[in-house]
Amino acid sequence: MINSYQDTIVAPATTPGTGAISIIRISGPETFRITDAVVRLKSGTVSGAEAYTIHFGEVFLEEKLLDEVLVSVFRAPHSYTGEDSVEISTHASAYIVNEVIGLLFKAGARFAEPGEFTRRAFLNGKMDLAQAEAVADVIASSTAASHRVAMNQLKGGFSAQLASLRSQLLEMASLLELELDFSEEEVEFADRKQLLALLEETQKHVDELAASFHQGNMIKNGVPVAIVGPANAGKSTLLNALIGEERAIVTDIPGTTRDTIEETMNLGGILFRFIDTAGIRESSDTVEKMGINRTFRKISEAEIVLCMLDAQSAGSDLLNNLEVLFRHVDTASQKVFVLLNKADQITPEEINKNVSVINKFVLSFDYKAKLISVAAKVGKGLPELKEALYQAEIDLISNEDSTFVTNVRHFEALQNASSALSDCRTSLSRGIPSDLVAEDLRRALSAINAILGTDLLDPETILHNIFQNHCIGK
Amino acid sequence: MINSYQDTIVAPATTPGTGAISIIRISGPETFRITDAVVRLKSGTVSGAEAYTIHFGEVFLEEKLLDEVLVSVFRAPHSYTGEDSVEISTHASAYIVNEVIGLLFKAGARFAEPGEFTRRAFLNGKMDLAQAEAVADVIASSTAASHRVAMNQLKGGFSAQLASLRSQLLEMASLLELELDFSEEEVEFADRKQLLALLEETQKHVDELAASFHQGNMIKNGVPVAIVGPANAGKSTLLNALIGEERAIVTDIPGTTRDTIEETMNLGGILFRFIDTAGIRESSDTVEKMGINRTFRKISEAEIVLCMLDAQSAGSDLLNNLEVLFRHVDTASQKVFVLLNKADQITPEEINKNVSVINKFVLSFDYKAKLISVAAKVGKGLPELKEALYQAEIDLISNEDSTFVTNVRHFEALQNASSALSDCRTSLSRGIPSDLVAEDLRRALSAINAILGTDLLDPETILHNIFQNHCIGK
Repeated sequence: MINSYQDTIVAPATTPGTGAISIIRISGPETFRITDAVVRLKSGTVSGAEAYTIHFGEVFLEEKLLDEVLVSVFRAPHSYTGEDSVEISTHASAYIVNEVIGLLFKAGARFAEPGEFTRRAFLNGKMDLAQAEAVADVIASSTAASHRVAMNQLKGGFSAQLASLRSQLLEMASLLELELDFSEEEVEFADRKQLLALLEETQKHVDELAASFHQGNMIKNGVPVAIVGPANAGKSTLLNALIGEERAIVTDIPGTTRDTIEETMNLGGILFRFIDTAGIRESSDTVEKMGINRTFRKISEAEIVLCMLDAQSAGSDLLNNLEVLFRHVDTASQKVFVLLNKADQITPEEINKNVSVINKFVLSFDYKAKLISVAAKVGKGLPELKEALYQAEIDLISNEDSTFVTNVRHFEALQNASSALSDCRTSLSRGIPSDLVAEDLRRALSAINAILGTDLLDPETILHNIFQNHCIGK
Repeated sequence: MINSYQDTIVAPATTPGTGAISIIRISGPETFRITDAVVRLKSGTVSGAEAYTIHFGEVFLEEKLLDEVLVSVFRAPHSYTGEDSVEISTHASAYIVNEVIGLLFKAGARFAEPGEFTRRAFLNGKMDLAQAEAVADVIASSTAASHRVAMNQLKGGFSAQLASLRSQLLEMASLLELELDFSEEEVEFADRKQLLALLEETQKHVDELAASFHQGNMIKNGVPVAIVGPANAGKSTLLNALIGEERAIVTDIPGTTRDTIEETMNLGGILFRFIDTAGIRESSDTVEKMGINRTFRKISEAEIVLCMLDAQSAGSDLLNNLEVLFRHVDTASQKVFVLLNKADQITPEEINKNVSVINKFVLSFDYKAKLISVAAKVGKGLPELKEALYQAEIDLISNEDSTFVTNVRHFEALQNASSALSDCRTSLSRGIPSDLVAEDLRRALSAINAILGTDLLDPETILHNIFQNHCIGK
């Protein structure tokens, strides 16, 4: 295999300093010897300890007591990594953790690379690569939906689907190989028609999985919701009102540019990513035009577009603004909500008049946009808006047993598989010789295998890329 | 005792989100039943598990797998709290930790108050109160010195000294009690002279412990070093230069006011707290005067005063500035370093001239101030300054076996004990009746007992005050 695992790795598995205890994780062939060199157990040794037992011990630094610790013992192959492994539980002091790790270095351990414990678990056959990648997703997931998808992948739900695809491809390949063996006799063993049908079905399955990436990505990174509208319609007020109420679970998206503000919010287990944009208006100013063009791009990237209008505008203004906004919306693929803001500033009669103007316009698109009256400043209409957003994306959380692809690497591999299967079908229907068809099939198979981590073309690079984004100690 | 411990408490013992694993801690009589209600072990139950064993299990939320966990089992009285207790190890996701704790609530656990695990350990006799207080100090300690002092206290080093004081006081009390029993016969059993000598010795020991608070407090919170001098001498440049080199271990002190900047730095295991102050000059401006008065107060609170001078100043300016600074320094109790800054801007001859001017002035105080030439901007002289600071406070780290009081509560109790012993001695030497002397002795005893946590006057309030500053999960 790739690693010889002659070395023993150590890393903190928890963040020291803010909790009560810290965990230091050690794994590798020398784990027990190294731990015994650093921790004096109250009785016996770690090397002599049974698996799944906990031992009280003391760590000394220069003959002075550094800490009292607990050592949990795991024996190969029944550990997370599949190797001999221990977890040392110390007081949660950065000083203590650093000193204990320093002592473990002296005794022969080296610091683990990011994700190296999970990488070893993969290389030791404890999980496939898709499962190993899910470990980081499980830790990062902050909503019920993202957690469920990551946990399903970790438990092998996705891998099982890939395994079934793989066996279909292998079956087809073996049919073609059979034909190849007898190719001199010019006999077509494989029923090409049956093979074509099988290929079509398999490709459909691959395409469905690849298509789930659209939703899977939203589950993982949040449903993008663009808040757009003319200047001073109250877009930022809405964002603040939405986020303000849920301040506790708000996170800023890193890399937020100064001109568009993004905030995420957990609504009923689904993560939404709200994007505040620059106000849209006709402008000859070059800089302002650039800002407005950026807004148009944000609209096109959004899953849901909140078109915000000032209810106090005259009917013709409303129509003009709506017209500009709808020019940039794709009603076939995007969900549009029209928000009539500042609804508390006008009479119910005026609201009704606006509503009918808007409805008439929207229906001219043969599209049913959801219309909600709000008063962002005082919080009116926000519960209705949140409920509407949740209902619009309820599929993300209610399709409990479906598999979602959430990983770009997997998505690309599935696209490669699909394109190889397309080539395969073209070749077959054009009567191209079996050996060339088999080549396409092998490409598809290899793409699927790459997701699971078998037959990696450049394993060292691929594994490095995957695990470098994991956290230390995992 | 105070608590009936009928309830079972739960709290995260680690910070979720940034590490690989999170630990949830449960303690109390219902621990095993509650854990069994939430975690399905692969085989057997937590209730049936042996102490010090680890078990693989699964947690389900609404019939869906929430996480795979490890459960570590501890049985009363051989646990941290002295109660039945478990630690559940989950993936380090805030979502998972919150949901698991929610399930534990439903099964009957309640959220632990800050420090409640340690409070229970104290109330169950696993440690005395001084040791329980040391737990938070061990976790918070960031240098070798503060760690050693906290660990000594946790391991009972301080408690042992208190116990010996206590037995001396008890011995004297019993001598006096004997006298009281026979008081009608007007016989003085206790040799008052011997008693006085014993009292004096005991009070000396109490006073020594109380006096160690000065150093103990510096070990825990940092040695206060005031950087003072005329405007533009380079005080802030020095602070930045000192801190910049050690950026990784710099922390801001909370509550830093805008007019004095404090930064801490670990030098060879000792924590130093540098205080940058407003430049001193004669001023009639009221606001500026207030700032300068604040500087004088900071000087008086400092353990070490760095008097910073601009080496480019004329000899008479140097003298004037030094004179103002030394007016506010207590050369009997404070350590003064004179820093001749911008030493790279003048010739060695000029430096020598300045040095002799300064030495002459300082020696007129009958004081030997350490003089160091520096160029803060380019880092010249900083290693020498750091070494000098370290050497000035080396006692804090080299007196390896001495006990330091670091806790204000303990310091005040020791002062109370000392004052009671003073009263005792006065009464004895004035021939005041034994029963009144015994009363004073009891006061001293009660002050010592309060540190250890026995005979607390208002236990609920005292324990609340102590443990509210502990972290959750400890």
